[in-house]
Amino acid sequence: MSKLTITPYGGLGEIGMNCLLIETDKSAILIDCGLMFSELDHFGVEFVIPNFSHLLRKKDKIKAIIATHGHEDHIGAISFAVKAGLRAPIYASHFTSLMVRERLREVGMHEEISIKVFNSGGPVQLGDFTVTPASVNHSIIDSMALFIDTPAGKIVHTGDFKLDASPFFGDVFEWDMFKKAGDEGVFLLLSDSTNVEREDHHLLDTNIAQRLEELFVKAQGLIVVSLFSSNVGRMANIFKIAKKLGRKIALSGRSMEQNVRLAHERGAINLDSSLMIPIDDVHRYDRNRVVVLSTGCQGEPRSALNRMAHGEHADVTLGEGDLVIMSSSQIPGNEVAISRLINQLFTSGADVLYDAIEDVHTSGHATRPELKKMIEMVRPKYFIPVHGEYRHLVHHARLAAETGVAESNIAVIKNGEITEIGSKVGIKIIDKLEELRILVSGRDGTEVTRDLLRDRRKLAETGVVFCMMVREKDSGKILTKPELMLKGVVSESFESWMMDEAMRIVHEQIGEYKKGLKRGFIDPEFGENLRIEIRRFFDRNTGKKPIVVPVLLDV
Amino acid sequence: MSKLTITPYGGLGEIGMNCLLIETDKSAILIDCGLMFSELDHFGVEFVIPNFSHLLRKKDKIKAIIATHGHEDHIGAISFAVKAGLRAPIYASHFTSLMVRERLREVGMHEEISIKVFNSGGPVQLGDFTVTPASVNHSIIDSMALFIDTPAGKIVHTGDFKLDASPFFGDVFEWDMFKKAGDEGVFLLLSDSTNVEREDHHLLDTNIAQRLEELFVKAQGLIVVSLFSSNVGRMANIFKIAKKLGRKIALSGRSMEQNVRLAHERGAINLDSSLMIPIDDVHRYDRNRVVVLSTGCQGEPRSALNRMAHGEHADVTLGEGDLVIMSSSQIPGNEVAISRLINQLFTSGADVLYDAIEDVHTSGHATRPELKKMIEMVRPKYFIPVHGEYRHLVHHARLAAETGVAESNIAVIKNGEITEIGSKVGIKIIDKLEELRILVSGRDGTEVTRDLLRDRRKLAETGVVFCMMVREKDSGKILTKPELMLKGVVSESFESWMMDEAMRIVHEQIGEYKKGLKRGFIDPEFGENLRIEIRRFFDRNTGKKPIVVPVLLDV
Repeated sequence: MSKLTITPYGGLGEIGMNCLLIETDKSAILIDCGLMFSELDHFGVEFVIPNFSHLLRKKDKIKAIIATHGHEDHIGAISFAVKAGLRAPIYASHFTSLMVRERLREVGMHEEISIKVFNSGGPVQLGDFTVTPASVNHSIIDSMALFIDTPAGKIVHTGDFKLDASPFFGDVFEWDMFKKAGDEGVFLLLSDSTNVEREDHHLLDTNIAQRLEELFVKAQGLIVVSLFSSNVGRMANIFKIAKKLGRKIALSGRSMEQNVRLAHERGAINLDSSLMIPIDDVHRYDRNRVVVLSTGCQGEPRSALNRMAHGEHADVTLGEGDLVIMSSSQIPGNEVAISRLINQLFTSGADVLYDAIEDVHTSGHATRPELKKMIEMVRPKYFIPVHGEYRHLVHHARLAAETGVAESNIAVIKNGEITEIGSKVGIKIIDKLEELRILVSGRDGTEVTRDLLRDRRKLAETGVVFCMMVREKDSGKILTKPELMLKGVVSESFESWMMDEAMRIVHEQIGEYKKGLKRGFIDPEFGENLRIEIRRFFDRNTGKKPIVVPVLLDV
Repeated sequence: MSKLTITPYGGLGEIGMNCLLIETDKSAILIDCGLMFSELDHFGVEFVIPNFSHLLRKKDKIKAIIATHGHEDHIGAISFAVKAGLRAPIYASHFTSLMVRERLREVGMHEEISIKVFNSGGPVQLGDFTVTPASVNHSIIDSMALFIDTPAGKIVHTGDFKLDASPFFGDVFEWDMFKKAGDEGVFLLLSDSTNVEREDHHLLDTNIAQRLEELFVKAQGLIVVSLFSSNVGRMANIFKIAKKLGRKIALSGRSMEQNVRLAHERGAINLDSSLMIPIDDVHRYDRNRVVVLSTGCQGEPRSALNRMAHGEHADVTLGEGDLVIMSSSQIPGNEVAISRLINQLFTSGADVLYDAIEDVHTSGHATRPELKKMIEMVRPKYFIPVHGEYRHLVHHARLAAETGVAESNIAVIKNGEITEIGSKVGIKIIDKLEELRILVSGRDGTEVTRDLLRDRRKLAETGVVFCMMVREKDSGKILTKPELMLKGVVSESFESWMMDEAMRIVHEQIGEYKKGLKRGFIDPEFGENLRIEIRRFFDRNTGKKPIVVPVLLDV
């Protein structure tokens, strides 16, 4: 009876698309259902989401999807799961529930599923599970850890967290609940591994607030602050400072406007009409009387900030004396784009501050000493590190061992590894799922399969050659001159030379084919021979083998 | 007479492809001629090199190409310059000259141009310029700063450098020459800006050597050290430690083997036959008696280390108890690939050390305090920051101003900005070159033009649709059924549905065209109409607009 199964569909072995199923024989709950931004956007892939096919087989057992907080890597795939057929109600804290609602609305799915607001402290019964959320500190408000009573014992899932005794904004970390759980006995701890490699206690949000205020006081011109649009706590902080210093606030970027509206609905930001001005009114004010909050902190090419950097923003032109503050971390993979953005911003003449040179951001994830403290508070019997790349999971597992969890009770598991935990079996991987991720082309986009991606990669690297001719159906006689079409193969100045040369290869093949015809033989390999020889020709001349498509139209 | 012109062809506003021309009325010298690794490798672009067309117009004026050291961003484009027609002799230090020779050999250009070895201390007369090299510390041996006497005064070009009073390997930084120059008066300082954002004095190479030795002593299994194959100093260091501890050395990766051979030729590494073993003999030794030096520290997919990580290396299989040390920095843009490699290495069971968690690497570039010291030593009249992204140049210029250089004598210039410096004119940008960079597909590869790249990007994101039919030349009558070919547009499971639907659009257009034919009108827009309507169809159904190529074969 006291057997539990844990199945991570995403988030273990990567930072992104968190999605974890906790199961007994009778019931199951899904913790988070996130997406990952794809690095394959050049190939028309915007997101990576978990493959829900295995999950859907357990559809009727799943009592709830619980979202620990509103970041995309925790809620972004819910709409895809709903579309795939999952209909369990969603439980989330207030702000998180608003974020989920918006995401579902955007794809017209908000009426398919019920969203229940989950208040801190209130336990909810979900099949075999009794779930009690607790407030934690993170870079988005209303972040929750989960205390889950199961037939096997109590599970603590930290969600994404850090320990901040004096959070600038949002609810206080509910230490007592963790300590109490530790005292009563915790069966399993699942804890955020993101920052396990960082030894330093990073800056607190109050330090950042203070530093921003000092910078605002000194600033002589326009101030632009770029930050994650979900970082409502820091936004509220900036609203407060701006008000104090008599600066107006303008918002630039759709997600910034949307989240400020949600934060207002949540009661986290007061949309003071004497403070807010529309972005197209910025020019009516003295430059030193305005703060612009802008999207684009990750160097996104179409973002508001990038348009400002290139002098292409309709309402904001940066110049000497202005100040841009990049108040955000760099998501791995975005470093080059961010760096390029910062360089471009400097060319406008504005000054630019970013975390390599100024304390304008602090991470939302616990560093090593905080992670240690968490383990010490909770003192779990079993430990599974979650939310991290494989190396983070390994280091977090080692930390747990150093902190007193028995080594045999710690499991580093990866996506798809179905893990059983119970007093008799201990902790062990009992099965492994394959094909865990699906690449999709947008919020309501279709799947980009491996084969399609392979074709696109090939097209991108080498281009494509079409070779066409028309034959008489019965005789096999060639009726037209062959045509060659190249796309993405060589630069324009080489194209005509290359076409002429390639055409000679085609004519050679036609010559061979005609010899056959004379003997009454219509070579069925003619098309394939064309393909091979044309491909070889380009390989010799460009070092690349393009996709070659021979087309023989029989009339 | 005392007028100088500086033209940066690369390296100012980016880290990579350093290439700077210093000119008087009569003569010119080119300092470095490097390439940059392209982030567009998915599109068949391997390197970015300077556009030599402007430079070639000054061909006869150019007395020398001087290579400050052997890194690719300083020497990698020399072969392209030679191929383009530049024939000035190359001056370089001993090891650098060997690296240049190899690069030229690889593309069969080594007989086209003379390479002269430039010894520290020996001044060389090159037209209006007297050039004296001086040893500096960097992450490759035989790195040089240049002292250049010109009619306008003395120029100090630092090359890439750091200040290390006790370098583990290689020549000692020639402080005295800098101090003496400062005392005598320096007209212009050109100084490396790479690490201007770093406040800390980083670890010295001796600390790394020490740490590596400690790690080697503790290691129980095989040790694999991955590092830049050009970092001969650190390699020599590892050879020494291995010898002391009785471990054999095996090399994995072509560039590693090549550079060890060059280092031996230079006299920097002694190829002790009792120490070195071939990589395919590793299995004959106890695991704890071997160190493997491996390429692949930047996560390159085809590198030796990546093959080890995936269990695909012919000679080295990693496992529990082995140790992999990543003794290198992360080149911006490679973070994700490196991270993926580290994760993969961990799954082998080996332990992995890298600079986020262990002191196993130190940068070869001076940090802020060292840069300040350089300016204080040299006390130049004019200052131009070089070797950096734009933000680095801006910060370095500010540092120079803080350190006493008159603000009006400091210029932040970007690639292509031709800058005149003279006692009368001061420092000023007099012209700006356009089209400064060329994308190329390989060491002896051809140019990838903007248009070609645009086609490839489009192919990669959306794929291509060909629509063909055959017409009777005179009547315009359509003789065949239309054919549609899709590549990279939709995944296989959608393709037939999509083709059927798209074919309906084609038939609609054919219907319209036929109506015209009945009236004796052969619509010249038929092809274009097909293109537009097919494109629209895919946009509606996939959210992407593929390249559509209508082909009408008239017979």
